[in-house]
Amino acid sequence: MSFGDESIRNNPVTGEEYNPQKSPRYSGVSTFMRAPLLEMTGEELSSLDIGMVGVPFDGGVTFRPGARLGPKAIREASRLMRTLHHATQVAPFDLCRVRDLGDVNFQNHYDINNCVEDMIAYYSKLHQAGVAPLSVGGDHSISYPILKAIASDQPVAMIHFDAHTDTMGPLFGSKFHHGAPFYHAAKEGLIDPKHCIQIGIRGSEHHGTPNNSLEMGMRVIFIEEFVTMGVEAVIAEARKIVGDMPTYITFDVDGLDPIYAPGTGTPESGGIHMREAQQILRGLRGINFIGGDVVEVAPCYDPTEITAQTGATLMFEILCLLSEATAKRNHG
Amino acid sequence: MSFGDESIRNNPVTGEEYNPQKSPRYSGVSTFMRAPLLEMTGEELSSLDIGMVGVPFDGGVTFRPGARLGPKAIREASRLMRTLHHATQVAPFDLCRVRDLGDVNFQNHYDINNCVEDMIAYYSKLHQAGVAPLSVGGDHSISYPILKAIASDQPVAMIHFDAHTDTMGPLFGSKFHHGAPFYHAAKEGLIDPKHCIQIGIRGSEHHGTPNNSLEMGMRVIFIEEFVTMGVEAVIAEARKIVGDMPTYITFDVDGLDPIYAPGTGTPESGGIHMREAQQILRGLRGINFIGGDVVEVAPCYDPTEITAQTGATLMFEILCLLSEATAKRNHG
Amino acid sequence: MSFGDESIRNNPVTGEEYNPQKSPRYSGVSTFMRAPLLEMTGEELSSLDIGMVGVPFDGGVTFRPGARLGPKAIREASRLMRTLHHATQVAPFDLCRVRDLGDVNFQNHYDINNCVEDMIAYYSKLHQAGVAPLSVGGDHSISYPILKAIASDQPVAMIHFDAHTDTMGPLFGSKFHHGAPFYHAAKEGLIDPKHCIQIGIRGSEHHGTPNNSLEMGMRVIFIEEFVTMGVEAVIAEARKIVGDMPTYITFDVDGLDPIYAPGTGTPESGGIHMREAQQILRGLRGINFIGGDVVEVAPCYDPTEITAQTGATLMFEILCLLSEATAKRNHG
Amino acid sequence: MSFGDESIRNNPVTGEEYNPQKSPRYSGVSTFMRAPLLEMTGEELSSLDIGMVGVPFDGGVTFRPGARLGPKAIREASRLMRTLHHATQVAPFDLCRVRDLGDVNFQNHYDINNCVEDMIAYYSKLHQAGVAPLSVGGDHSISYPILKAIASDQPVAMIHFDAHTDTMGPLFGSKFHHGAPFYHAAKEGLIDPKHCIQIGIRGSEHHGTPNNSLEMGMRVIFIEEFVTMGVEAVIAEARKIVGDMPTYITFDVDGLDPIYAPGTGTPESGGIHMREAQQILRGLRGINFIGGDVVEVAPCYDPTEITAQTGATLMFEILCLLSEATAKRNHG
Amino acid sequence: MSFGDESIRNNPVTGEEYNPQKSPRYSGVSTFMRAPLLEMTGEELSSLDIGMVGVPFDGGVTFRPGARLGPKAIREASRLMRTLHHATQVAPFDLCRVRDLGDVNFQNHYDINNCVEDMIAYYSKLHQAGVAPLSVGGDHSISYPILKAIASDQPVAMIHFDAHTDTMGPLFGSKFHHGAPFYHAAKEGLIDPKHCIQIGIRGSEHHGTPNNSLEMGMRVIFIEEFVTMGVEAVIAEARKIVGDMPTYITFDVDGLDPIYAPGTGTPESGGIHMREAQQILRGLRGINFIGGDVVEVAPCYDPTEITAQTGATLMFEILCLLSEATAKRNHG
Amino acid sequence: MSFGDESIRNNPVTGEEYNPQKSPRYSGVSTFMRAPLLEMTGEELSSLDIGMVGVPFDGGVTFRPGARLGPKAIREASRLMRTLHHATQVAPFDLCRVRDLGDVNFQNHYDINNCVEDMIAYYSKLHQAGVAPLSVGGDHSISYPILKAIASDQPVAMIHFDAHTDTMGPLFGSKFHHGAPFYHAAKEGLIDPKHCIQIGIRGSEHHGTPNNSLEMGMRVIFIEEFVTMGVEAVIAEARKIVGDMPTYITFDVDGLDPIYAPGTGTPESGGIHMREAQQILRGLRGINFIGGDVVEVAPCYDPTEITAQTGATLMFEILCLLSEATAKRNHG
Repeated sequence: MSFGDESIRNNPVTGEEYNPQKSPRYSGVSTFMRAPLLEMTGEELSSLDIGMVGVPFDGGVTFRPGARLGPKAIREASRLMRTLHHATQVAPFDLCRVRDLGDVNFQNHYDINNCVEDMIAYYSKLHQAGVAPLSVGGDHSISYPILKAIASDQPVAMIHFDAHTDTMGPLFGSKFHHGAPFYHAAKEGLIDPKHCIQIGIRGSEHHGTPNNSLEMGMRVIFIEEFVTMGVEAVIAEARKIVGDMPTYITFDVDGLDPIYAPGTGTPESGGIHMREAQQILRGLRGINFIGGDVVEVAPCYDPTEITAQTGATLMFEILCLLSEATAKRNHG
Repeated sequence: MSFGDESIRNNPVTGEEYNPQKSPRYSGVSTFMRAPLLEMTGEELSSLDIGMVGVPFDGGVTFRPGARLGPKAIREASRLMRTLHHATQVAPFDLCRVRDLGDVNFQNHYDINNCVEDMIAYYSKLHQAGVAPLSVGGDHSISYPILKAIASDQPVAMIHFDAHTDTMGPLFGSKFHHGAPFYHAAKEGLIDPKHCIQIGIRGSEHHGTPNNSLEMGMRVIFIEEFVTMGVEAVIAEARKIVGDMPTYITFDVDGLDPIYAPGTGTPESGGIHMREAQQILRGLRGINFIGGDVVEVAPCYDPTEITAQTGATLMFEILCLLSEATAKRNHG
Repeated sequence: MSFGDESIRNNPVTGEEYNPQKSPRYSGVSTFMRAPLLEMTGEELSSLDIGMVGVPFDGGVTFRPGARLGPKAIREASRLMRTLHHATQVAPFDLCRVRDLGDVNFQNHYDINNCVEDMIAYYSKLHQAGVAPLSVGGDHSISYPILKAIASDQPVAMIHFDAHTDTMGPLFGSKFHHGAPFYHAAKEGLIDPKHCIQIGIRGSEHHGTPNNSLEMGMRVIFIEEFVTMGVEAVIAEARKIVGDMPTYITFDVDGLDPIYAPGTGTPESGGIHMREAQQILRGLRGINFIGGDVVEVAPCYDPTEITAQTGATLMFEILCLLSEATAKRNHG
Repeated sequence: MSFGDESIRNNPVTGEEYNPQKSPRYSGVSTFMRAPLLEMTGEELSSLDIGMVGVPFDGGVTFRPGARLGPKAIREASRLMRTLHHATQVAPFDLCRVRDLGDVNFQNHYDINNCVEDMIAYYSKLHQAGVAPLSVGGDHSISYPILKAIASDQPVAMIHFDAHTDTMGPLFGSKFHHGAPFYHAAKEGLIDPKHCIQIGIRGSEHHGTPNNSLEMGMRVIFIEEFVTMGVEAVIAEARKIVGDMPTYITFDVDGLDPIYAPGTGTPESGGIHMREAQQILRGLRGINFIGGDVVEVAPCYDPTEITAQTGATLMFEILCLLSEATAKRNHG
Repeated sequence: MSFGDESIRNNPVTGEEYNPQKSPRYSGVSTFMRAPLLEMTGEELSSLDIGMVGVPFDGGVTFRPGARLGPKAIREASRLMRTLHHATQVAPFDLCRVRDLGDVNFQNHYDINNCVEDMIAYYSKLHQAGVAPLSVGGDHSISYPILKAIASDQPVAMIHFDAHTDTMGPLFGSKFHHGAPFYHAAKEGLIDPKHCIQIGIRGSEHHGTPNNSLEMGMRVIFIEEFVTMGVEAVIAEARKIVGDMPTYITFDVDGLDPIYAPGTGTPESGGIHMREAQQILRGLRGINFIGGDVVEVAPCYDPTEITAQTGATLMFEILCLLSEATAKRNHG
Repeated sequence: MSFGDESIRNNPVTGEEYNPQKSPRYSGVSTFMRAPLLEMTGEELSSLDIGMVGVPFDGGVTFRPGARLGPKAIREASRLMRTLHHATQVAPFDLCRVRDLGDVNFQNHYDINNCVEDMIAYYSKLHQAGVAPLSVGGDHSISYPILKAIASDQPVAMIHFDAHTDTMGPLFGSKFHHGAPFYHAAKEGLIDPKHCIQIGIRGSEHHGTPNNSLEMGMRVIFIEEFVTMGVEAVIAEARKIVGDMPTYITFDVDGLDPIYAPGTGTPESGGIHMREAQQILRGLRGINFIGGDVVEVAPCYDPTEITAQTGATLMFEILCLLSEATAKRNHG
C-alpha cells in the first residue's frame, strides 16, 4: 500500500505538478514535514491513518514559557526531513495516509482547565475517527488530555523520555501543570504504571517530594542507570515493560542533554545524547504504538535553531514507529 | 533631605564600606538600580517612600510570552543606571527612601483571576503603608490590579505610553488579559477617562473592534498625530489632560519603536523614538505622580539586551518623576 | 464589496468555525498574513484580485546570501498583521480577493538565467489571469522578471525604495544580478525612466561607475536630499513623477536604516526611518498600483527577527495601497 | 543537623512566609542557588560553614575577556538548581549553613597585582573565620590568591578540570595571568604537585613550551588518556592522588567540550562531556574538600545561555561535595 | 594625484590582476576597507599619508570588556565600504596613500601603564614618519597616548562624539581608564580645552562628580541641547570651536543611540542618530584634521553585527575627512 | 628541517620583531592560523609545500546558503590554533613551508559551471607548482574541481567525512551541486571508488534515490555502523581502504553532530562527535595525503561561533596529517 504520491500537487499558477516533500527545502508553505494539510485536501478525517497536530499551549510551565511557539518552529525545521528513514527503510507517508491537521484551537487560552477540556474534546474526535495522533507541543501538560481522549477505553502502556518524571501532584495551587500529566493519567487509569517506563530522569530535587512514579510502580531509568545499562539494555527493558499493549510514546526534549535542546523551559545538564535517543527509538519497532508526542520546544531560547531541528528529527523517528504500527492495524 | 547614604554597606567579609550604587557595575547582586533590598535592610515598610516591585507575570499575553522574565532582566540592566539624572539633576535616592521590594509572590500562577487577586492584595498593603509603587512587569495586565489597590478611594489620572490602547473587552474568553487593564480600570472608576492620555497608539486592527478609549473619553494620540504635533505639544497635552490630579504613569515598551524594544510580545513597527520618550517624560515634572510601571519586556526575543536597557532607562526616568512628586507629598 | 469572510474555515477535526486571521497569533499554519492559500481553497486563479507570492531566490546577490529564506520568515512574521489599517482604515481583504499563492517553483535554481525565465513564465500566467502580484523576495533581481511579465504591453511607472539604484550593467560577468533589475527593465521599455523615482539611495561607490538611473532620466532622491526635503515633499515628488500611470512599487528593505533591517545582504548605514517609510507609503494612496514587492530580507543575519517584522509591515502597507487601486480597477 | 529552613523568609510587604529556593524559578532576586545573602541576614561570618563568593575579575585572560560577568550569569542560571542532589541525595543547605557572600570588592581592577592582593586579603578573612569558600570566577587567575589564603598553613591537594594546565610561567610580561595560577601555587608550596591531578588537558601548543605540570610532578590526564581510561579509572586515579589530604577542587568550564560551554574565552574542541564530568564529581565523595571554584564562564559569547547553566550545575555538584566534607569537619 | 591603483595586486597562484577593494565583498583576507597591508607591500612608512591602525586594548573599561576585539570586527565589517564617498565624492584612496598598518603590539597587556607607554612609542614613530593615524579601538583610553604622541609639539583642537565626557580623574584607583583620556590630554596641554567640543553627552551621573570638561573650558553639547540646536547649528559650533587649528577627531560609538551600537561596553539610551552623525561629519570638511579614531566597538554584545557596520561606516567618513586634509597638507 | 621561524616579521612601524602565531590571539590581521600570506611574502609559489586556500563559493547548495562566508569565519576562528599538535607533537609549520594563499577569485560567481572552470584552473596551477592544497569552503561542490586538478594523472584514494554521500546525479536541473562532487569525481576517474571511504552517513532519504556510493563500490560507514564498530575499527577500515595510494581527505562539518556545527546548510541530527573525529584523524598518520578540505561552514546560522571553531580545529588536524605526508614526499 502506498499513499506517498498523494503529496503531489499542482502549482496553482502554472499548473505544473510538483511534490512539496521533494522540492527545494527553502521553498513553500511550512507544514509538518511538508505533508498535505487536511484543511487543504478536504479529505474526510476518517480516511486518515495518522494526524500530525500542533498544540500551541504553554500555560502549564513552571519556569520559562515559550513552548506555544513550538509547533510553528517544528513545522519550519521539519523541512529538513525527507520521506524515507535511511536506517530502517520505513517510508511513513507510503505506509499510511498522514496529514498535518493544523493546530488545536482553544476557547480561552488563559484558563488551563478550559484548555484541558478543549484538548480532550479535540482528541476524542480524532480518536473516534480512528486517527492516530502525533502531536507537537506545547508544554508537557498536553499529554494528559491526549491520553484522556485516546485511552478512555482501557489503560495503555507508555514510553516516556524526559529529565523529569512529570508525576507530581498539584503545584503552586494548580492540579494541571507540565509536571503532572502522568500523575493524573495514572490515577485515572489512562496509563497502567506497571507498563510505563521513564527514561533519562535527573536533576536536583527538594527533600520530601515523593517520587510518585516509583510509588505508582513505573519503571524509572535515571540517567545514571541509563549510562550504566547502555542503550541495548534500555531498549530491552522498554520492550519488556510495554509488552504488546497499545503504547503511547512521549518525548520531552529536555530528556536530551541541553546541547541538543537549549531552547526549552527547564533544561537539566547531563542528559541523553541524540544518537542514543535515535538508537533507542529505532529499537522500539514492532511495538503497538497508538500515538505519540514531542513537547517542550521553546524556540525563543535558542538562536541556533538546533532545538527545533532536534524536535523535528524526533518527530520523524516517532512517525516512522507510529506508521509501521498503524499500517499493521489499519492495512494489515 | 537625603537618603542616598543609606545605600552604603559593609562588605560582610572584609568589613570595608562600599556603596553598591557606585561600585563597578559588573559586580554585586542585582537589585533594581542596585538599591537596597527591603528584605536585606529589615526596615519598616511604612518608613519607605517608594517601593520598586517586580511582577513576574505574563499569563495575560495574546501572542508571545516571556515578560515574566522582565523583572530579572531589568534588575540586571539597571546596573547601567547611576543616582543622579544628568538633565534634570533629580537624585531620586536622595529625595526619597527607595527600596527594591523583591517580586510579588503568586499563589497560583496558572489562574489569571487568582493572580489578579494576589496583586490587588499586595498593592493594597503597599498603599496602606503609604508607599508609592514603581513596578516592573510582566505583561500589561498587571496595571489593573495595581490601580485597583491604589486608586480605590478616588479615580486617578493616567499617562499611558503604548502601541495599543489596552481598553479591550474580553478576549479569547477571558475578562483579564494584557489588552484589557484600562477597560476595567475605567469601568470601575479607578481611572477617570477624561483625565487619561494614551500616546503612541498604532498597529493594524480588525473591522468592528470598537475603540473603547475614545468611546470612554480618553485622549488618544495615535503615532500619526504624535509625529505631526511634535514632542512639546504632546507634553502640553498630557499636562492639560491630567492637570493636578493624582496621576499614574504606565509605559509599555512596545509603545516605542521595536528598534528600542525588539524583546516584547507584540511589537508594532513605527513607534516612539527613545529621545522623544525621554524628552516627554522630562516634560512631565511637577505632575502629582502616585505610581508607575514599565511593562512588556520579554528578554528572550532580544539577544542584544537593548530591550532591558531601554526598560531600565525608562524606569529611572519614571523614578525621577515619582521621587520628586513623592518627596513633595511626604517631605514637603 | 467584501471578501473578508472568505477567510473563515472549519477546524478539520472539530468542525468549529474559526477565522485564522483573528485567532491567537501563535497558532496555525503560516501563510502571508494568515490569508487563505490558493492551493487550499482550490479557487480559480482568475477569480482573484491579488496574489501574494513568495520568491525564494537569492542567486543574484553580490555579497551575503540568505534572502531565499525571506518568504518563510515573512510568512511567520506576518502573523503580527491584522486585517484593517489603523490609520487609513483600508481593509485589503474586504476590498479584494487576496490569496497566498505559495512560492514560485524553479526548474534549476543554480542557473540565474533559467530562474529568470521561470519567473517570467510564472508572472505572465498571473498577469494573463488578471491577478495583481504582491511578491516577497528573494533578492532584488526578482523585480526584472516580474516587470517583464506584467509590463510587457506598455511601460509602467515605478516607485522604488532602496539604498542602491539597482541600475547597474553587468557585474562579475553576469547580466542578471540584484544590482541590475531596473537597468534591464528600463532598457527593455518595461519601466519608463522619466516616471520612475528612487528613494533613499546612498552608500559608498567606486570611481567611474556611471549612475545609470540619472543617465536614463530617473528621479533619484539620495538620502541627503530626502532629509532636507522632508517626507511631505517626497510624497509630492513621487506622486508627480508617476502621475496616473500604472505604477509598480518595489521596496528593498536595505532602503531603510539597518536598525530596522539588520537581516539583509548589503546594509548601508543612515537610511530611511520606518515612520518615514510608513508616512510616505500612506501618502501614495490613489496611485494606480498594479503590483509590488518587498525584497532582500535575509533572516539569518538577524536573531532579533525585527527584519522580518519590518518586511511584513511593509508588505501590509503595500497590500493596502494595491488593494485600493485594484478594487477600483476590478470592482469599481 | 539541618539548616535548610533558614532559607524561609517573609514577604516584606504581605508578611507571607515563603522559601525563595522553592518558589517559582522566574521570580525573586538572584543569589547563588537562591540561598540567603549574608548581607541580608546579618549573621556572623564565623557562623557559616560555606561561603559562595563571586569574583568578577577577568584581568588575567590571554584572549577573549568577559568572565567578569560570570558571577551574575551564574547567579541567574542557578535558579535552575533545587536543594537536593537527585543521585547522591546530598542536601547541601541542610548539611551546612551556606550563604551567598556577594562579590569580592576590588580597589583597583586595572592592576592585576593589586587585585591579587585584594583577593588574598578577602579569602584570608574567610579562612580565618573558618568558612570554606566556593567561588565563581572570573578567569582562572583567581585560584592562586584563593589558595594563597586558604593553604597558607600547609600545602593542599588539588583536583583540576581544564583544557589547559595553567602552570605556565610569565606570559606577555606578567607573572599573573589565567595560565599561571598553579605554577605559583606549586612554587610557593600552596599545593603539593604530587597530590595534584589535572583532567581534560588538550589543545595545540608551541614548541619549546615546557609542561611545568609534568615537570613539577603533577598527574596530568590528557583528554586522549581520559578517553582510553574511562570515567571509573579517572575517579580512582584522582582519589589515589589526593588521598586524605585537604583538597581544593577547581573547574574551568573550558575543560568541558565547547558544546557545553561556548561562552568561554579560550575554547578547545574535543573535551570532557557533561555526563562524564558529573559522574566523576559524584565519584569524589568522601574526599576532604576544603574549597572549590568554577571559572571562565564568559556569557557574552553564548546567546543560548548553556554555559551559565553548565556553570551553575557544576557549582551545585561541587557544593554537594564540599558540604559533605565540611559538615563532617564542622558538625561531625 | 591618485594612489588608488596601488591596491591592485596579482593572484599569487594564477597571476591574474585583481583589485581587492573591488572584488566580491565576501572574498579575500580582511584588512581595513580591504586596503593594502603595509607589512605586505613593504613600503617605507614615511611614504604613507595615512595609517589605519588597530588598537586591540580594552584594559581601561569600567564595565563590560570586549572592545579589544573591535579591530578584527571592523576589519571584517569594512568589506562593506567602497572607495568613493557618494555624497562628497571624496575618494580617500586616490587622494592619499593609505595603508592598513596592522595592530599595535603590546609588551604586557595586563598593565595599563605599560600599554600606554607602548602606544605612545608606537604613535610617536608614526608621527615622526609624518603619517596621520586613523585608529580603531579598543576602548577610549587609547586616545590619550595617541594624543601624547601626535600633539607633543603644540596643543590641538578636538571634536569628540560620545555619551560621556571622558574627562574624569582617577577611578577605582587608576589614573588611566576609558573615562579619563581627555582629562590627562588637557592637563598635559595636548588638547586645548577652549578648542574642544564634545557632542552627544548624556546619561545618569552621581552627585558630586565634577564636570571637568566644563570646568576646563570645553564646549559640551549635551544630547538635549543637540536635539534643540539641530544638526546644522552643531556643525557651525564645531567649526567655530576648532577654527583652523590642527584638529583631532574621536568617535566613541556609544555617542550614538544604542540601536546603532548595541555592541559596546556602556550604552546610554537616547543618543545621536546615524543620519545626524553622518550629516555632521560631512559638515566638517575643510577642517585641518591630523588624526582620528573610532572606539568602543565590543562585538560580543551584538549578534546582529550592526555595531561593527556602524564603526566601519564612521571610520570611512572620518577617513574621507582626514584624507582631504592630509592631501592638502602633503600634496597641496 | 624547520620553516617555522619564517613566520616572524617586523612591526612595520616600530620595527620590533614579532611572531604573529605567538602573539596575543585577539590581535593582528586574520590569516589561516596566522600563517604568512603568500601575497605578503612574495615568495615563489613553487617554493611552498602546502597552500591554504579559501574558496568562498556556495552556489551549489540545495537548502540554506552562507558557506561562502566560511573562509573568513575560519580565518578568524583559527586564531585559536597554535603551532604544535599536543597529542601527536606534529609541528606543521616547521615540517613544511605553509602559506595562506588567499581566496580563489571567480570570474562570474553567478554561474556554477564557470566557477567550476575557475577552480579547476586555479588548482591546476597549484598542482603544477607542486603545492599540496588545504582548502576551506564554501560548499562541498568545490571538491570536484579540486580533484579534477590534482588527480588528473591518476585516480586517488579518498577519506570522506559527511552526513551525506554527495554522489548524487543531477539535481534540480544541474549537473554540479553540493550533493554531486564525488559522483563526477568517480565517473571521471579522479577517485577510485574501491579506495574511497565515506564516514558518518545518515539522514532521511527518498524512495528510489539510488545509493551511488555503494553502487560504485565505495565503502560507506553509516553512522549506525560507526557506533557499533567503534573508532579504532573505523581507523583500521579507512587505512585498509586507502592503502598506500595518494589520498585526498575531505571533511564536511555536517558529518559531525549539529551540536558541533549548527552553522551549516543541511544539518542532520545524530552525527560524529568531535572527540571521535579527532581520534580518527590522528589515527590516519602515515597515509600519503596529497590534499584536503573542510567545507560547509555557514557562520550566519551560528551566533555561538562554535562551527567556525570546529572548522578551524579540523583544519589544523588535517594540516598536521598533510604536513607529515608532504614533508616525507618533499623533504624526505
